[in-house]
Amino acid sequence: MFEFDIRARDGQARVGTFKTPHGNLETPVFAPVGTQATVKGLTPEQLQEAGATLVLANTYHLYLRPGDELIASLGGLHEFMQWDQPLLTDSGGFQVFSLSEIREVDEDGVSFRSHVDGSMQRFTPEKAIQVQENLGADIIMAFDECAPPYDLAYSQQAVRRTHNWAKRGARAKVRSDQALFGIVQGGVFHDLRKQSAEVIAGMDFPGNAIGGLSVGESKQEMFAMIEIVNAVLPENKPRYLMGVGTPEDLIQGVARGVDIFDCVLPTRLARHKAAFTAKGRINLTNAAYSSDPRPIDETCDCYTCRHFSRAYIRHLILAREMLAATLVSIHNIHLLVQLMADIRKAIKTSEYQQFIARFEHQYKNSQEEAG
Amino acid sequence: MFEFDIRARDGQARVGTFKTPHGNLETPVFAPVGTQATVKGLTPEQLQEAGATLVLANTYHLYLRPGDELIASLGGLHEFMQWDQPLLTDSGGFQVFSLSEIREVDEDGVSFRSHVDGSMQRFTPEKAIQVQENLGADIIMAFDECAPPYDLAYSQQAVRRTHNWAKRGARAKVRSDQALFGIVQGGVFHDLRKQSAEVIAGMDFPGNAIGGLSVGESKQEMFAMIEIVNAVLPENKPRYLMGVGTPEDLIQGVARGVDIFDCVLPTRLARHKAAFTAKGRINLTNAAYSSDPRPIDETCDCYTCRHFSRAYIRHLILAREMLAATLVSIHNIHLLVQLMADIRKAIKTSEYQQFIARFEHQYKNSQEEAG
Repeated sequence: MFEFDIRARDGQARVGTFKTPHGNLETPVFAPVGTQATVKGLTPEQLQEAGATLVLANTYHLYLRPGDELIASLGGLHEFMQWDQPLLTDSGGFQVFSLSEIREVDEDGVSFRSHVDGSMQRFTPEKAIQVQENLGADIIMAFDECAPPYDLAYSQQAVRRTHNWAKRGARAKVRSDQALFGIVQGGVFHDLRKQSAEVIAGMDFPGNAIGGLSVGESKQEMFAMIEIVNAVLPENKPRYLMGVGTPEDLIQGVARGVDIFDCVLPTRLARHKAAFTAKGRINLTNAAYSSDPRPIDETCDCYTCRHFSRAYIRHLILAREMLAATLVSIHNIHLLVQLMADIRKAIKTSEYQQFIARFEHQYKNSQEEAG
Repeated sequence: MFEFDIRARDGQARVGTFKTPHGNLETPVFAPVGTQATVKGLTPEQLQEAGATLVLANTYHLYLRPGDELIASLGGLHEFMQWDQPLLTDSGGFQVFSLSEIREVDEDGVSFRSHVDGSMQRFTPEKAIQVQENLGADIIMAFDECAPPYDLAYSQQAVRRTHNWAKRGARAKVRSDQALFGIVQGGVFHDLRKQSAEVIAGMDFPGNAIGGLSVGESKQEMFAMIEIVNAVLPENKPRYLMGVGTPEDLIQGVARGVDIFDCVLPTRLARHKAAFTAKGRINLTNAAYSSDPRPIDETCDCYTCRHFSRAYIRHLILAREMLAATLVSIHNIHLLVQLMADIRKAIKTSEYQQFIARFEHQYKNSQEEAG
């Protein structure tokens, strides 16, 4: 269990298989996010048909509602949401620090006010593990503190706590059918990131994560931090870049040795009427698509693109029909999943540099609009 | 084409097959409503898996947005919404009279203000046919005027116009691959309903509809009108009761010789957190279901009931996740489709009276809550 076999390499990029109780994950892998035990708008059947193999759910949200104990009593999160492939839960740390307006951090943990019912709650490293053991995901995360990326003093403190909390989390862990990953923090500070990677690597987790990125820093800083951290994290264990991201970021992350990614982007974009295509992002409300019989992406073989025209999807969006978000989410998730499959193939044939060049040539960046 | 073969009878109830260009419809049949070219929240794949065979779309809505000519240019409504089984479009009459705040009716047609963009629009019997020919449904409806059910003077005028408009619609029709149904009106007035049925029957449409019911009159009045009308409408053609309804109404309609029904109820209820069960309607937000591992209905074999607990669906509702409406819509549609299948079976074995008695014994009416 939780063996990680690297089957091919090309530069820092690698193709691997991570063994979990719910099946083997081919890496690099992108995990869509099912915040509240559902990837928004998709049945597990649609999610599987879109090609997803790993889904992330949010510990913070599920702890607050419906409650981790309730989910445990109903057989755990896999059973609850009817997803029988690998699941990953985050530690709740990121949400406690980003969603909860009132919170107090101390050495032992964090007290915070629930955004659902206003009640006061407390998370400690031990509590975060206990909640995640109740949920029962295959991959679980140590409780961490996510500091604003440019605040050195706070970042130093947060790194120290995160290391301390990672140790306590590892000690608190009881279940053997879950892989606990440690999280590297350290903002945009080279030395701090390096130090954090060394400490986390030393704890010998079955996998390691890079947290606190894609939270406001520049792309250059993000990529620099990934390089510093991955130079330290063990080669023979999966590396997980949390909360990333765009097609461009996935490609650059893999080039720097990342194996696992998660992001709300494909489903959030879909709810905001935007779709990925091989040529870049498009806004489906654009009047140019009003009578366009083509699918979102002519090179895509997802359910949405096999069946529906841009004109139909644009109509659904203007008519405020929920099917629009479902169809575009299916497509966006499939596109990222297919991108990861293409990435794995390019690595296996040692053509990853050419793959990146080809992608950059045809893909307009996320701020522009493709044709 | 449009042959109607009655294969079994039990009292006034009958089982038939109605041949359409997109396949044979087994009747009695319930059609879910896809107002804007989508049954809200369901892909056509999910709709088919739920067992739907006939879908109704709204001429009024699709004429206003995205436009019938646009849909025609994209290959018609079947292609646009990717539903390859039979489709039915209404005439737009009901929506013109119920949704448009400003309207003027004259002998020739109706002028009304679009609720989408405020533009002035005009529907005539000929225009309603032309729009429906652009949409291309298998069953199309003559343009009718729907009067408030208790207004005798208005009802007399509306019936006269509806008959006149039915004749004009029949003359305007060009396509031979669509069955035009006439609509009987007449409020709650026995003589007027009988007279309307006689006139519409005399026009020899391939099928006939009963309009202007389930719009505020009592159940007794509705059933009385169905009986009066169906005593006149030809036996050998399908009878369509528009906008009905609840499980109880479907059963009573079939007992009075109705073959086709449509209603927004299963999907609208689903969006309002209510589900049909064999024992009656339940409200899924009920706290009693918070840890209930049972499916919505233990006797149901729909996708939702094969996979998900009441506790999960309640969680989705409280978390305002769109998957809730999708899952409950799948269930509610399947339950009505399955009810129609059970009805057909009972008619074939001449046990329809026993079927009704059994249903009434176990099904609490729609105002109460089942366990």
